Amino acid sequence: MHQKTWIALAVLATAGAASAQSSVTLFGVLDVGVAHVTGEGVSRTGLSTGGANISRLGFRGTEDLGGGLAAGFWLEAGLDVDSGSGKTSGALAFNRRATVSLSGPFGELRLGRDDAATFLNTLIFDPFLTNGVGGTNAFIMLGAPIQVSNAVGYFLPRELGGFYGQVQYAFGEQPSNADNSKQGNYAGARVGYRTGPFNASLATGKLKGATGAEDVKAHNAGVSYDFGVVRPMLLWASEKKGAVKITAIELGATAPLGNGELRAQVSRYSTQPGSADWHKLALGYGYHFSKRTQVYGAVARLKNDSGAQRSIGLQGLAATGTTLGGSSSGYEIGIRHNF
Amino acid sequence: MHQKTWIALAVLATAGAASAQSSVTLFGVLDVGVAHVTGEGVSRTGLSTGGANISRLGFRGTEDLGGGLAAGFWLEAGLDVDSGSGKTSGALAFNRRATVSLSGPFGELRLGRDDAATFLNTLIFDPFLTNGVGGTNAFIMLGAPIQVSNAVGYFLPRELGGFYGQVQYAFGEQPSNADNSKQGNYAGARVGYRTGPFNASLATGKLKGATGAEDVKAHNAGVSYDFGVVRPMLLWASEKKGAVKITAIELGATAPLGNGELRAQVSRYSTQPGSADWHKLALGYGYHFSKRTQVYGAVARLKNDSGAQRSIGLQGLAATGTTLGGSSSGYEIGIRHNF
Amino acid sequence: MHQKTWIALAVLATAGAASAQSSVTLFGVLDVGVAHVTGEGVSRTGLSTGGANISRLGFRGTEDLGGGLAAGFWLEAGLDVDSGSGKTSGALAFNRRATVSLSGPFGELRLGRDDAATFLNTLIFDPFLTNGVGGTNAFIMLGAPIQVSNAVGYFLPRELGGFYGQVQYAFGEQPSNADNSKQGNYAGARVGYRTGPFNASLATGKLKGATGAEDVKAHNAGVSYDFGVVRPMLLWASEKKGAVKITAIELGATAPLGNGELRAQVSRYSTQPGSADWHKLALGYGYHFSKRTQVYGAVARLKNDSGAQRSIGLQGLAATGTTLGGSSSGYEIGIRHNF
Repeated sequence: MHQKTWIALAVLATAGAASAQSSVTLFGVLDVGVAHVTGEGVSRTGLSTGGANISRLGFRGTEDLGGGLAAGFWLEAGLDVDSGSGKTSGALAFNRRATVSLSGPFGELRLGRDDAATFLNTLIFDPFLTNGVGGTNAFIMLGAPIQVSNAVGYFLPRELGGFYGQVQYAFGEQPSNADNSKQGNYAGARVGYRTGPFNASLATGKLKGATGAEDVKAHNAGVSYDFGVVRPMLLWASEKKGAVKITAIELGATAPLGNGELRAQVSRYSTQPGSADWHKLALGYGYHFSKRTQVYGAVARLKNDSGAQRSIGLQGLAATGTTLGGSSSGYEIGIRHNF
Repeated sequence: MHQKTWIALAVLATAGAASAQSSVTLFGVLDVGVAHVTGEGVSRTGLSTGGANISRLGFRGTEDLGGGLAAGFWLEAGLDVDSGSGKTSGALAFNRRATVSLSGPFGELRLGRDDAATFLNTLIFDPFLTNGVGGTNAFIMLGAPIQVSNAVGYFLPRELGGFYGQVQYAFGEQPSNADNSKQGNYAGARVGYRTGPFNASLATGKLKGATGAEDVKAHNAGVSYDFGVVRPMLLWASEKKGAVKITAIELGATAPLGNGELRAQVSRYSTQPGSADWHKLALGYGYHFSKRTQVYGAVARLKNDSGAQRSIGLQGLAATGTTLGGSSSGYEIGIRHNF
Repeated sequence: MHQKTWIALAVLATAGAASAQSSVTLFGVLDVGVAHVTGEGVSRTGLSTGGANISRLGFRGTEDLGGGLAAGFWLEAGLDVDSGSGKTSGALAFNRRATVSLSGPFGELRLGRDDAATFLNTLIFDPFLTNGVGGTNAFIMLGAPIQVSNAVGYFLPRELGGFYGQVQYAFGEQPSNADNSKQGNYAGARVGYRTGPFNASLATGKLKGATGAEDVKAHNAGVSYDFGVVRPMLLWASEKKGAVKITAIELGATAPLGNGELRAQVSRYSTQPGSADWHKLALGYGYHFSKRTQVYGAVARLKNDSGAQRSIGLQGLAATGTTLGGSSSGYEIGIRHNF
């Protein structure tokens, strides 16, 4: 097989404007590990994927249109390294992101499938980035989406003295004369402020249910501060569907340690009505072989209140289940390679 | 994530012949827009994809074999930017084209999955290239294929004083002793003449039905002439399945206007027997931000005769349906980015 | 569409170590041909794929971590060029390989989906590399895997005076409290010795069945010697599932002839208990247009004993079936293009 290597250069586009520069980038994350998860009286051992970062393969690019304008695209497919599978019928699709953007001094207009505005804080303010045994449970608690298709998004420009924000609307695409004509419509917004070591963000969104089914409302907020020796972070997230509500509060931290990073979180998930609460503790470490390659390990323990029955599972390694009010734990050691 | 950019250079192949040059090209089209389609008393709004050009991702390459011979390959997957989905079980496959070719002074021999010979005229002689609200309805009217698998194709060489042509045979791959042993066999041919501003082409093909089921016969022809200020085109297409026949006649035109292109078509689709005819009117414009990026808009209206019930739909946004004899309309605004 | 070509250069990684070099390679094999297969009183003609080498598309890369260590990844998807389909729900997934590796003086540790240790000899010691009408039937005879997911593999370092070897364990990932808690667990090992023209290898493995279902045990060995004018090879392979056992013995050879390679094999497959044996004869030739492009042809004949009913099929062209004790034959001519 003939070797070809993609090298890091910007190319002069074939586009008219002499100043136009463009690039196409292949990128990916391959993350795979050995993991063990337990419930009460049961365990499962195997290979997991995405323990530190979600495994993915993507193509993205930008084109300078002149006058401060740029066009961009992003295609990103999730995959399971443990099995080689993709995430749509077991095969590859750009389920994580498929967008075309126009950006300029006004900000960015983005069309396609993208992260939901209400998902991002649960990722960014979790030391485990939602991944692996240690990842937060503060998302899709009652059905709020991770990604949304058919979305129109607007992002504020980057130079606003630290302020950032986005609004997003996704079409459910139901026919106008149907009883459930609004089913699947999603609207979300996120605003934040980041300066030096400080970052804070709020998000809110609503996913319309079918006729007779409740909407899912999601709200969350996060704040982090990098003291250098440690970066503590606090995440609050709530999802509400009709009379049911789950609220998560997570205190996390990352800290440089040796040639790597220590990660820890403690979180509590409160369900109303009822006593289906649970909490989770996790500790992990990622050792940087290089900027691209990390070896990581993590341990976590989840404890249910009397009415809850949650157990720890991973991408590529299903949860075992546990008893009502029981506990669950997990550990993993893996390798994450970016390209 | 590590940035890599593919640059535009031909590489000396590792193949023996010192003269051998080869290239591998990543290419794609991402086209996404906001669209609205209506039937009688019903509408649907959402994101569409492929309004100006079908969204796709592909890999292709050629290898100079010396002596005027070349080997080539082409892999092309359709995709929906609005949802990130592919076209096979929702995931990516090279449904648009997967071929290996040998070409030389004799022409090109091509094996694999490819556009059907009888599809191409309906694409080339439609100002909307079959896409979006304005695209022609002159293909797959009664089941003639867009692409065919298991195809052997032969293309005339390019230097024939303007003449071009192809023949194509695709195997249905039924067992010889089955009642339906010819089911799925497809044979097609296309010939044309192109010189300066003039282009004209004829195609004919047949898809074998199952035992007791009729074959689908497709015939079509197109002609266009580029006067500079306007390029009118005429497309005639017919599909016949047993006693049923649909005939399309479309008059279209493109015209440069400002830094873009105006597009228009009027077409009529006649069904025999019966009164299930319909016609369609469409007007659109594409503004060229650059050679690679176009912003476009289009409006279209379809009117059914008393026995027809057609309605306008798009890639990524399903048609609404309409009443018998009713009308349907649509508009869209989108962005198409090539790489 | 904007042309971009990936050129053959090593790039300085963005990683910390100044010595770190890394590469990402796109690679593929596209192999498609016209084939004809027969059983008693029945035949099928069409396009096949992978007659000389399995068609595939992949991405792989390595990163120098310093100190003799390297990280590597490999993603490889099988595909059918005749239809453009992938191998998972008809779409693309990295079903052939998806791994991340750490390698160094100690050898290589590899995690993910990979070739089963017990598959490799049946590939390497078959002149047809398991492919096309002539390929060996000495694998998946009773269900031993070609690839395994959730696998941990260790490979000996390359510099051991010709010795090579690997051990592999793949997790079935059943819950510990299930009756079938070991179902799908696979363990395999392979050792060999290669020096100059000589190569020999042994492999053994076991796939755990469900509760009450038998395990599949596979053993095989191969030896080849390249005399220059001819490279004979011998393959012995056995699979056992409970009381049933199939044993294959194949004598094969490749020989340079003109600007190509002659391939031949004769093989016998013995089933115990019973009389469901069969044997196969095959002859083929591959002409090298270049290092990357080969045109090939092959013919094969399979003869069943009274209790067997095997028939020749190919990737992309299903077998026809035959009568009990009947014969089957096939021929094909195709083109294989690597990039």
